[in-house]
Amino acid sequence: MRKIFRELVSLEEAKNIINKNYNYKLIQKTEKIPLIDALGRVVARDYFSSIDVPGFDRATMDGYAVKAEDTFWANEENPVEIKIIGKVEAGEVPKFEIGNKEAVEVSTGAVIPKGANAVVMVEYTERVDDKILVYKSVTPGENVLSAGSDLMAGELLVRKGTVLTAREIGMLSAAGISEVEVYKKPKVAVFSTGNEIISPGNKIEFGKIYDINWATICSAVKENGGDPIFIGIARDREEEIKRKFIEGMEIADIVISSGGTSAGVGDLVYRVINELGEPGVIVHGIAVKPGKPTVVGVVDNKLIFGLPGYPTSAFMIFELLVAPIIRKIAGLAERERAKIRARLSKKIQSVLGRREFLPVSVIKGKEGYSAYPVSGAYSAVISAIAESDGFIEIPENKVMLTEGEEVEVTLFSTLRPADLVIIGSHCIGIDLVIELMRKKRPWYVKVINVGSSGGLSAIRRGEADIAGTHLFDEVSGEYNIPYLLKFSIKNAYLIRGYFREQGLIVKKGNPKKIKGIEDLLRKDVKMINRNPGSGTRMLLDYYLKQMAMNLNDRFENLIRKINGYEIEAKSHTAVAVAVLTGKADVGLGIRSVAEMYGLDFIPLREEEYDFVIPKDKFEKQPVKDFIETLKSDEFKNEIKKRVKGIKPRDDTGEIVFQV
Amino acid sequence: MRKIFRELVSLEEAKNIINKNYNYKLIQKTEKIPLIDALGRVVARDYFSSIDVPGFDRATMDGYAVKAEDTFWANEENPVEIKIIGKVEAGEVPKFEIGNKEAVEVSTGAVIPKGANAVVMVEYTERVDDKILVYKSVTPGENVLSAGSDLMAGELLVRKGTVLTAREIGMLSAAGISEVEVYKKPKVAVFSTGNEIISPGNKIEFGKIYDINWATICSAVKENGGDPIFIGIARDREEEIKRKFIEGMEIADIVISSGGTSAGVGDLVYRVINELGEPGVIVHGIAVKPGKPTVVGVVDNKLIFGLPGYPTSAFMIFELLVAPIIRKIAGLAERERAKIRARLSKKIQSVLGRREFLPVSVIKGKEGYSAYPVSGAYSAVISAIAESDGFIEIPENKVMLTEGEEVEVTLFSTLRPADLVIIGSHCIGIDLVIELMRKKRPWYVKVINVGSSGGLSAIRRGEADIAGTHLFDEVSGEYNIPYLLKFSIKNAYLIRGYFREQGLIVKKGNPKKIKGIEDLLRKDVKMINRNPGSGTRMLLDYYLKQMAMNLNDRFENLIRKINGYEIEAKSHTAVAVAVLTGKADVGLGIRSVAEMYGLDFIPLREEEYDFVIPKDKFEKQPVKDFIETLKSDEFKNEIKKRVKGIKPRDDTGEIVFQV
Repeated sequence: MRKIFRELVSLEEAKNIINKNYNYKLIQKTEKIPLIDALGRVVARDYFSSIDVPGFDRATMDGYAVKAEDTFWANEENPVEIKIIGKVEAGEVPKFEIGNKEAVEVSTGAVIPKGANAVVMVEYTERVDDKILVYKSVTPGENVLSAGSDLMAGELLVRKGTVLTAREIGMLSAAGISEVEVYKKPKVAVFSTGNEIISPGNKIEFGKIYDINWATICSAVKENGGDPIFIGIARDREEEIKRKFIEGMEIADIVISSGGTSAGVGDLVYRVINELGEPGVIVHGIAVKPGKPTVVGVVDNKLIFGLPGYPTSAFMIFELLVAPIIRKIAGLAERERAKIRARLSKKIQSVLGRREFLPVSVIKGKEGYSAYPVSGAYSAVISAIAESDGFIEIPENKVMLTEGEEVEVTLFSTLRPADLVIIGSHCIGIDLVIELMRKKRPWYVKVINVGSSGGLSAIRRGEADIAGTHLFDEVSGEYNIPYLLKFSIKNAYLIRGYFREQGLIVKKGNPKKIKGIEDLLRKDVKMINRNPGSGTRMLLDYYLKQMAMNLNDRFENLIRKINGYEIEAKSHTAVAVAVLTGKADVGLGIRSVAEMYGLDFIPLREEEYDFVIPKDKFEKQPVKDFIETLKSDEFKNEIKKRVKGIKPRDDTGEIVFQV
Repeated sequence: MRKIFRELVSLEEAKNIINKNYNYKLIQKTEKIPLIDALGRVVARDYFSSIDVPGFDRATMDGYAVKAEDTFWANEENPVEIKIIGKVEAGEVPKFEIGNKEAVEVSTGAVIPKGANAVVMVEYTERVDDKILVYKSVTPGENVLSAGSDLMAGELLVRKGTVLTAREIGMLSAAGISEVEVYKKPKVAVFSTGNEIISPGNKIEFGKIYDINWATICSAVKENGGDPIFIGIARDREEEIKRKFIEGMEIADIVISSGGTSAGVGDLVYRVINELGEPGVIVHGIAVKPGKPTVVGVVDNKLIFGLPGYPTSAFMIFELLVAPIIRKIAGLAERERAKIRARLSKKIQSVLGRREFLPVSVIKGKEGYSAYPVSGAYSAVISAIAESDGFIEIPENKVMLTEGEEVEVTLFSTLRPADLVIIGSHCIGIDLVIELMRKKRPWYVKVINVGSSGGLSAIRRGEADIAGTHLFDEVSGEYNIPYLLKFSIKNAYLIRGYFREQGLIVKKGNPKKIKGIEDLLRKDVKMINRNPGSGTRMLLDYYLKQMAMNLNDRFENLIRKINGYEIEAKSHTAVAVAVLTGKADVGLGIRSVAEMYGLDFIPLREEEYDFVIPKDKFEKQPVKDFIETLKSDEFKNEIKKRVKGIKPRDDTGEIVFQV
């Protein structure tokens, strides 16, 4: 047997070890850049104003600069006559000193001449030759912005560490500052390792996968104030990886590799970092999930991270461990991610002894937020984080969280509440409705495909505005309505959708000569299934139960004989593509997607696809737009034109039932 | 009398008029850019995956690919013997098909060979020549990431309109996409107008002010997804302004000027836009404050904004009217600014018939948030928005808001809660404490200078962690302690600060031969005062009241005779600079700032400057750091070295009183 990571450390320990072995202050540099390029940059010192703004008493109105005292008894009946002795435009230096009963014409922004202490607005005067009649009195200081009333010389403009927005940039500009000293963005060299990795844009070959981490990590470096330099892909060879590290250390302050860190045949990164110099590897394995096989090294006060190759592992370790250091060097405060409380939508199991950071999607419902966790071996898949809103943290000693348990979700970015939330069964018809309705008003629509049952649960919890459903009741022979009762849905409408032709999707020309459900039992036929809770899965299981009865077999036995029953696709489209690419010979699905991919279709029945909408969501504009679009001739014509197998009905878009 | 804006329209009307006269869709363009440069950009179409990710069943562990069934009875006592028929590294195409009791060595990421359906981790095997002993059974699918389980071909990757973060960029990269179609940033030409405007970086002359709007507006264009092009400053001449507009229209989609829009001698922008073409000016004046003299024009489907020249007016109109259009062209959703409820810290008056957008600072207290509004003619000063956290909206028909009234504050950016909030009297000693304590831990400290009284009120409302105070009680002759009772402060400590020498700050050499308070009455002496509620102001008023008694005069009469009594500076520093620059001959202040600016100082008395800290804030780490620093020898030595007139005491930093 082989070496396991000798000493997993906790995340906190890892941070402490880095702090002990690495001094980010030695890396931190500043630079002077033009103010106009400084948006989003971090100022590296306190800035004070060296001047008064404005530098003089300034007219805030067009009018006449006067001694206020001269106007004290002026009113509409009894104007005061004042002599004009000159004119000052904005930007001019006045050559006048105003005496009693004298005025100088000033435009907005002009210097108030000596002797004057107020401006009479031009609207309240009448000019007669070289005199004005003043119809309204002014008080001392009226319509005058006194020197230094915006900024006084000596005043603090921006504090060291401020991230510049338009507003602070305006302050600095007002004080005449045209260049600003900011923290230099730390240079971060990034490379990927792996024999199977190829760069996006190139043709993919069997056995290869596109490099994900280069893009994710380079972008995340930027997000955190760093300057990423991608230096390519290294094959799994010691010499090649070493060369990349040396190249990275020459051009950057921090070097990040991904891949090659697991305790496998490789474990190359660990060995290579130790060869680069002292102290070499300082952390080898962290007690977290995902991201355990992380390596951290320090050589010549350059910080080196060997991130795991899996995209979600690499991203999470970057966020938890690497980003805070890049931010420090860049002068940025720790990233403040918003946190919200949410209830788990389902039970989850975690691992003992490692802290887990589990990605979740967040939906707002009647009783607050629900967190929908990703499922399966998520560390290996980028979709786990890309489609999530944030993550929950599960302590080392906790192995089980129950459904409905309250958790704290750390959000990846601001939780942008969707204008319209559609949770339920996936349908190409919904995609079309969304496309058409967004032409009118570009609502932000969130679609979570969890199957018909999941949609009804979401309606019950008040999380969905609309749920698409096509659930067949074996007892009544009816679609959908019986399930509103089964799921205890209250105060909701059932809106008529359309017919969808369900059947078997098979390859073009049907080479395996599949005729019906019974062919799924053939040894030479491989199927692809749908996820549990989807209407399609229910329909398949309904057919299979009937078949089991006919064969005098148990359903559980029967499905074990079906090749591919356990492989689940998340959508109709995914089923069609699986058949298209030869991963499966057959799958149950709707005609429309079969047509879309040029596949053959063996019809089984017409199912009723409808929508459930809670009454209290019915008046929301995006919901109204959805229904209006569904009812429209445009939708009906377009769906017929584009999609065979979806058939609008006479009452499509109408309320057909309510609970 | 002169033309007033003929027809002010509401903000909503202005938006409608623009929508009717301008079609942003005609301007909207897309461009293809490398994925790696796409962070923060907005995708211009839906992106689907054209491949499965991974494209094959993939080993997730180093080990041996086997038929799971062959391992079913394996355990630590009874290992199963399996023959190794080869090896597959990641990236290789396997040439094997596994039969019964056969295995292929695989490394993480490798293709699972035909016939195999699981991977036994290397840790649970022992190699003997060309065989392995398997000590643990695996189930079908174990340690295998099946094809398409990250992304399936046909799956939606990112929706049109998505702002790309590292996570979506990872998704696109996983699908092999190396270039992405995004909305082109609209080009926005920006220029400033005004004879008095000069560019930062140049020497300032009397009567001129630095250009603020170029920097604010260009940066705000960037913040909202646009590409600003600054085309310079135009003097207030019709021809010059017209040339700038024409230049802007040639190179940009939108042109923004600032200044020259008021109904004054100028009003040039209005006339020039009408000369440029049809339809010309479509909005001339908006019923808002600030920002009334805004001009909007359309010529050849180019949108033209004539923003007011005042910085806060220009910025607010940009945010309310211009930014939403730039965002639309850039494909961005409307900026979602967080809103919070807060209570007004003081009464405010608004204008009838115009909607007011009033900047406020926000502080969190015991009973929620307090909003501290800016005061005075804020539209003309950039500090009004730069030092605020957000703004409140006051409806057209409301002229008065009371102290304590609940308002909704729209935040400029995320309200970053300060680690330490110091509200009260300004002191250079505090600046030093902050500087020293931030060396250890870089806390974000918010200092609001509202004078000693304002500080005590903030303590009472639970808004301040620390209040600096130097309030002299005329009756007891004591500092600060009597005021804890007068302000009904409860559950707070008084922490000993230091002595500060108060006196008159006069010009170097004291040319006016000022000897004491009585000289303020001299006609040839101009003073600068401090804001009401400040300890310094109280001390001055105390002296003046004594003088009034001696002169048998009323205090109210006496102060009217003092030249400059009504001019208020917000801080000691500001007083010193006023004297330095000749704006005043004398001001009351502390010795330290007089020394700092090389001014002369006439001592009056030693005042006691102390700190009030609520008991429930006492254990906060930043508060502890503050007190620890205050007590430290480093502070005491440094303050003596740097600042004459501030004298630490034996018990500096100790609790000297509690309520």
